[in-house]
Amino acid sequence: MREASRKNILVTGAAGFIGEAVVTALASQNGIAVTATDAKPRPTGFDGGVLYQEGDISDESLPSALCSEKFGAVIHLATLPSGAAEKDPSAAKRINLDATMALAERVSDQASPPRFVFASSIAVYTTHNVEAVDDETPVAPELLYGAHKAMAEVWLAALTRRGAIDAVSLRLPGIVARPRAPSGMTSAFWSDLFHALGSGERFVSPVSAQATTWLLSRSRTVENILHALEADSAAMPDNRALALPALRCEMAALVKAILNHAGQDEDLISYAPAAAVERIFGRYPPLITKKARSLGFRDDGDLKTLVRNVFTDIETQKAAS
Amino acid sequence: MREASRKNILVTGAAGFIGEAVVTALASQNGIAVTATDAKPRPTGFDGGVLYQEGDISDESLPSALCSEKFGAVIHLATLPSGAAEKDPSAAKRINLDATMALAERVSDQASPPRFVFASSIAVYTTHNVEAVDDETPVAPELLYGAHKAMAEVWLAALTRRGAIDAVSLRLPGIVARPRAPSGMTSAFWSDLFHALGSGERFVSPVSAQATTWLLSRSRTVENILHALEADSAAMPDNRALALPALRCEMAALVKAILNHAGQDEDLISYAPAAAVERIFGRYPPLITKKARSLGFRDDGDLKTLVRNVFTDIETQKAAS
Repeated sequence: MREASRKNILVTGAAGFIGEAVVTALASQNGIAVTATDAKPRPTGFDGGVLYQEGDISDESLPSALCSEKFGAVIHLATLPSGAAEKDPSAAKRINLDATMALAERVSDQASPPRFVFASSIAVYTTHNVEAVDDETPVAPELLYGAHKAMAEVWLAALTRRGAIDAVSLRLPGIVARPRAPSGMTSAFWSDLFHALGSGERFVSPVSAQATTWLLSRSRTVENILHALEADSAAMPDNRALALPALRCEMAALVKAILNHAGQDEDLISYAPAAAVERIFGRYPPLITKKARSLGFRDDGDLKTLVRNVFTDIETQKAAS
Repeated sequence: MREASRKNILVTGAAGFIGEAVVTALASQNGIAVTATDAKPRPTGFDGGVLYQEGDISDESLPSALCSEKFGAVIHLATLPSGAAEKDPSAAKRINLDATMALAERVSDQASPPRFVFASSIAVYTTHNVEAVDDETPVAPELLYGAHKAMAEVWLAALTRRGAIDAVSLRLPGIVARPRAPSGMTSAFWSDLFHALGSGERFVSPVSAQATTWLLSRSRTVENILHALEADSAAMPDNRALALPALRCEMAALVKAILNHAGQDEDLISYAPAAAVERIFGRYPPLITKKARSLGFRDDGDLKTLVRNVFTDIETQKAAS
């Protein structure tokens, strides 16, 4: 950490897929005090030194309970996922927009603006009729989830200009492999693919063999989030938002890499593309993340490494549970 | 109006400086039904045919009362002005962001998306360290007012992509000459200048003679807002946001034009620039509004015409009151 004050860190969404791994990684470092919060109970694997506060991030009393002390940094991961957000627009606004705005105001500190790492999403972009997404691509969300994330980014950048916080909004791509349990993410099939093929089960893809998406392993995502705690403010774009580097994967190539890694047969895969799913989750153009790369953020390198990182993570989870 | 459905129009902020003139202009046209709302009582000058609902736009019961019928178009002007917004951030969020989001959802109609004209603001831009503002300039608000407007724009564009509404966000420049009564706008001195010099009173400018700003007369603003009801959807930018054309005026040249028009002496003006005011309200770079101009929006043409338009408006107000 650059500054002593950064050593007291708040993590929201701490019992989620990414949050749990972030807290575990932070708690393993010397001299970092972690306060963690989530609507779910304290994960059993957390180090005893982690302060844990169970509660709803959109409940106004939670931030006051959390913020009795000053944080040097905040990692704000709590979110209502995209599919669930579409089903409950008012909860989506409350959790994904209002709670983010309120938390950022609550932790703001003109004397020493805390680094505020926000889990935004590539859902802020439109991905059809676009040749490529790069640092100049404007936001154009279609899902409520993406709209709320884009709005929260505007707020965090404004508070940063005002010297209240020091924000970094990371636009997360598809993170694999999320657990099989329903996550509320419509894009969950990209994760289910790993679990099914890795276990020798048949998998019917809801997108075509030519479908493309942007993927990042959970372990590399956590590295990027921790890196965001230290990334250089002066080199940040004015909107403080960065698409994380990710591999653009074609379904057929990804299937092949998974089958190779797992030593499984190609008969396991079949395709039944649904037009609506393909349109939203299967037509990702090239992703050019020069700015994020120059700031030190990284993807998994290549498809083989991505698949290996994912299965290492799955094995670690299995061993821990 | 292009379509019959556009003939039923809702105007919010209808008793405000711009709203009153918009309602009066609409009510004078044949075949247009106007529903108007404001927190203030019904303006005495409104045509008897105007349906008026007094109420707080951020009160959830108001939209249901208003939206018992379908509107072909909405002109959403209700706002907490910039100075007042800085003083009461939670009211600012409630009125400028939440109420705008809720109203747009309330009037949305997939079968026939209503044109939703939103009074956004040039406060979405930063104006210092910028060579010019044009159609490619990203939002970079510093005031809460500008941040909420920029966020509302993102929401309205998302609802437009979803086919729920047909939004046009007009980024209004300084509108002159607002009444002398405290308006909550920190930029009010640009209006007070007209009233003072026009009446032969001394005026101490809080910005230097070289200060620049973007101005539009109220009458031309109203023309632009009415034009937005009919402007071509297909030619709109994807973010549905347009800075309105405005004259970039230098304080000294504006003073001269006003004194010439009013036949007053140049001894009336003196300068006591305050650094903070000059920085925020007196360093406007060139404003290049190609897209808005191609869509038919217009400024006052030249400084002399701007000043004449303003004084014609002031005289009309005096005659009516």
